[in-house]
Amino acid sequence: MNMNTKLNLSINSERLLKRLHELGRTGLDNDNKRTRLAASDGDKAGRDLLVTWMKEAGLQVEIDKIGNIFGIWYGSENRNEAPLLLGSHIDTVINAGMYDGCYGVLSGLEVINSLKEKGFIPTRPIAVGAFTNEEGVRYQPDMMGSLVYAGGLSADDALKSVGTDGTILGEELERIGYAGSKEPGFLKPHAYIELHVEQGPILDKMNIPVGAVENLQGISWQRITIEGVANHAGTTPTNMRRDAGLAAARVITYLRDQANASNGTTVATVGTIEFKPNAVNVIPSLATFTVDLRDPNEQRLKEEEKALANYLKELAISEEVSITTEQLVRFNPVTFDQTIVEMIEQAASGRGLHSRRMTSGAGHDAQMMARICPTAMIFVPSIDGISHNPKEFTKDTDLVAGANVLLDVVSNLAGN
Amino acid sequence: MNMNTKLNLSINSERLLKRLHELGRTGLDNDNKRTRLAASDGDKAGRDLLVTWMKEAGLQVEIDKIGNIFGIWYGSENRNEAPLLLGSHIDTVINAGMYDGCYGVLSGLEVINSLKEKGFIPTRPIAVGAFTNEEGVRYQPDMMGSLVYAGGLSADDALKSVGTDGTILGEELERIGYAGSKEPGFLKPHAYIELHVEQGPILDKMNIPVGAVENLQGISWQRITIEGVANHAGTTPTNMRRDAGLAAARVITYLRDQANASNGTTVATVGTIEFKPNAVNVIPSLATFTVDLRDPNEQRLKEEEKALANYLKELAISEEVSITTEQLVRFNPVTFDQTIVEMIEQAASGRGLHSRRMTSGAGHDAQMMARICPTAMIFVPSIDGISHNPKEFTKDTDLVAGANVLLDVVSNLAGN
Repeated sequence: MNMNTKLNLSINSERLLKRLHELGRTGLDNDNKRTRLAASDGDKAGRDLLVTWMKEAGLQVEIDKIGNIFGIWYGSENRNEAPLLLGSHIDTVINAGMYDGCYGVLSGLEVINSLKEKGFIPTRPIAVGAFTNEEGVRYQPDMMGSLVYAGGLSADDALKSVGTDGTILGEELERIGYAGSKEPGFLKPHAYIELHVEQGPILDKMNIPVGAVENLQGISWQRITIEGVANHAGTTPTNMRRDAGLAAARVITYLRDQANASNGTTVATVGTIEFKPNAVNVIPSLATFTVDLRDPNEQRLKEEEKALANYLKELAISEEVSITTEQLVRFNPVTFDQTIVEMIEQAASGRGLHSRRMTSGAGHDAQMMARICPTAMIFVPSIDGISHNPKEFTKDTDLVAGANVLLDVVSNLAGN
Repeated sequence: MNMNTKLNLSINSERLLKRLHELGRTGLDNDNKRTRLAASDGDKAGRDLLVTWMKEAGLQVEIDKIGNIFGIWYGSENRNEAPLLLGSHIDTVINAGMYDGCYGVLSGLEVINSLKEKGFIPTRPIAVGAFTNEEGVRYQPDMMGSLVYAGGLSADDALKSVGTDGTILGEELERIGYAGSKEPGFLKPHAYIELHVEQGPILDKMNIPVGAVENLQGISWQRITIEGVANHAGTTPTNMRRDAGLAAARVITYLRDQANASNGTTVATVGTIEFKPNAVNVIPSLATFTVDLRDPNEQRLKEEEKALANYLKELAISEEVSITTEQLVRFNPVTFDQTIVEMIEQAASGRGLHSRRMTSGAGHDAQMMARICPTAMIFVPSIDGISHNPKEFTKDTDLVAGANVLLDVVSNLAGN
């Protein structure tokens, strides 16, 4: 067994839960909705609280140019070792829950806090990070802080990003006091581990407390525009119709058929749609909709994209419509570090917790960090899979269990 | 053969076309778009022109309480006979073409004009009517003037109708000087004949100049609301989805399958749709769309409505969604008078014109008048079936041919 279970260490569950609720009370708007958009006043309130706790824990606090916050526990003998990095984000969507991101950051802090208090001697620095603008609601792209940190986007370009409210990210970070001086990437992690609520229903429905996240779905977003001919719904015989709305419906049912045929690896969603002219008695001349395709395997994701393109070609002929597509987003799937994933499984098992290997269906900072170091994620159940919503909920016992699994993995990776 | 072809009468095509263009130039808005919404200033301009022409033709002009305009040619010996009524409407949609409705009214006037000039002696009065608010854009319901005339709605109730601009129809009719004193229905027609552009593609595509319209489709409009569960597009496995958008797409493709299976009698259209929350990466929790179902046979229309209701029940179970429907509009099919339809065919044939029996896919004042007297319609081709659009177009030769067929039928029904 690994060291910590031998030492029988556990986190201070009361402190973790208390902090989670306290952070959750920052950024409430006039309607009492929790909204800490990146670099807003609400975000500043959350950041200030986090930095206070990091300092109380005796961590060295560093802010980089994109506003990522790091609290680092340097030991006297380990300054030359690559640090083990834990973390996530504390920015939120509009009217958010209190677990998404915050749980990972505060658990990382709690793990360090507990290890320090219990006299654990780390063989390498252990740090906890809160990445700027993971949600991407106010500034694009999402997962910005970790993307910049991993070298996928320059800090200068990211700081020029114009918000939905017309603000400039760089100016807003200055304003709230989080435009740091460190170069993004200044810490070269030995490994990165992100603990997160699942934001999906699998663990909850299967009653499994721990997900050992082995990969993260690739994401392909397309906007599809189908152009037919607007005609009178009563006077146009069926065989003379060029119905853009019908063609769109055929794409939606096709995508479900493909998802069903994939044995659960591919998921496909049409979440937005618009018809024009959108009148009860006029055949739609235009249908515009989005396709969100995901698969954890790049080869399969490419095959699905190609199959869709072929289907659209056939459909354009059979329905006498013209179809154009535009790629909106494309992320390759990410495979996490198998060694760490196994450690997560072992840690869960060591605590008598069931776990299952799983795929992350959502994007996370971990997918960016995987570019620069061995990375993995730990999931805990989200009741009914609800997230990005005040109803987001994870039971305290699951929160504590997940943080203890993180502690075990950390003490393994940073222990003797 | 009937009398007029023996007399070799024809309409004055130059006068008909000139008036069509002149009426078409009334009601142009600041963008030069033709918009004569019921009881608007544009409508008044059109009405004034029509009344002027009626008076020039020596007709007795009468306005009823709902603003319907009638120009009546009474002969010295025929005042006690039931009049033959021709007509349609001159109100338009927004940014309309110049043929819809106007062609029928002005052809009716032209037929009377020509018969009078040529010394035709009618055995019964011949009248031409322009019904108020056929389009139903500003005030609901559409086909209002003929509905009131046929006794389907009281004039008092109709006049209280509140417009999309907050106006009251009764007040607006007063304002433009067309709140008449005659009781709707004051003329009890011997028969009603409406000449109209097809507003569909059949005659144009088949290159047939005359449609002998034997019936008019029944119309069933429903709004269908499907409620599923909004969930994350990446983290929700396919088998745990309750996707309202997918269920809506299944209904759309089902309706096309039903229309295809009907051998062309049933047409089905989904012209409007909305998803909520309408986000790329969120499974739709709500899909709202409309269904426009039409069939010229009431029995078949009922069967289609029932089949759809059964399909929705099965779908609610298979997709784990809840579905509600709301009937928005329901008109029974109308069967026109077979004797007049045959006269139309004979008149076309007498002029060496091909004709075909057909169904009206659109609603017309004739469907209301059919409640109170033998009724039929004559269609002429609409290029590409385009209507309710400035591109609406019928060739002059087809316009003249249709008006001559009307003249022949009129001289048959009101001749010796």
